[in-house]
Amino acid sequence: MSTTTSLDPAIAARLKRDDHGLFAAVVQDAGSRDVLMVGWMDDEALHRTLTTGAATFWSRSRSEYWVKGETSGNTLAVREVRLDCDGDTVLVVADPAGPTCHTGATTCFDADRLV
Amino acid sequence: MSTTTSLDPAIAARLKRDDHGLFAAVVQDAGSRDVLMVGWMDDEALHRTLTTGAATFWSRSRSEYWVKGETSGNTLAVREVRLDCDGDTVLVVADPAGPTCHTGATTCFDADRLV
Repeated sequence: MSTTTSLDPAIAARLKRDDHGLFAAVVQDAGSRDVLMVGWMDDEALHRTLTTGAATFWSRSRSEYWVKGETSGNTLAVREVRLDCDGDTVLVVADPAGPTCHTGATTCFDADRLV
Repeated sequence: MSTTTSLDPAIAARLKRDDHGLFAAVVQDAGSRDVLMVGWMDDEALHRTLTTGAATFWSRSRSEYWVKGETSGNTLAVREVRLDCDGDTVLVVADPAGPTCHTGATTCFDADRLV
């Protein structure tokens, strides 16, 4: 991930990151209120999400930033970003432009119900 | 975390865990559909969640299992558990018995809105 970031230092100071400098980002549909997906962010991904209005993540498998929908067109337009009480997770409330899951499903949680 | 678990091997085979054997668990209120909190589970925490109906996590800071609400009474009664498309996050849909956040707030995301 990037070693420099323009993330507001007042926000950066409240974040708790894992061993890889990452924290979880839960995306919720502003309209349906479905939980759409969970991605990972570092400070720079959060900075880009806050400043561009397009949900942006760090890919742990590809080791690169990715803007959700950059390829598929199924972007996530950010309405709210909230930090949780211990600073290790963010909640992104967004308007999805289409199905969020790469499988074509509305959410990444549609296919596999355990109970 | 526990080295032995009774988690259904068919479920265990679909999980992708981090370096510490953990995966994120997002809890959503079945009624209000608020995202209440994010915790961490290993296989055994998921097994306990699935079999007891009480949302159970692994505490990364205390290195022990914890049943949400065990002390406060603000338990999370599990209605659904869903695995995401790449197997590294679960969504727990639950009925909360009271405020979920240890601060007394309804959710862990109530206090700190970034945008």
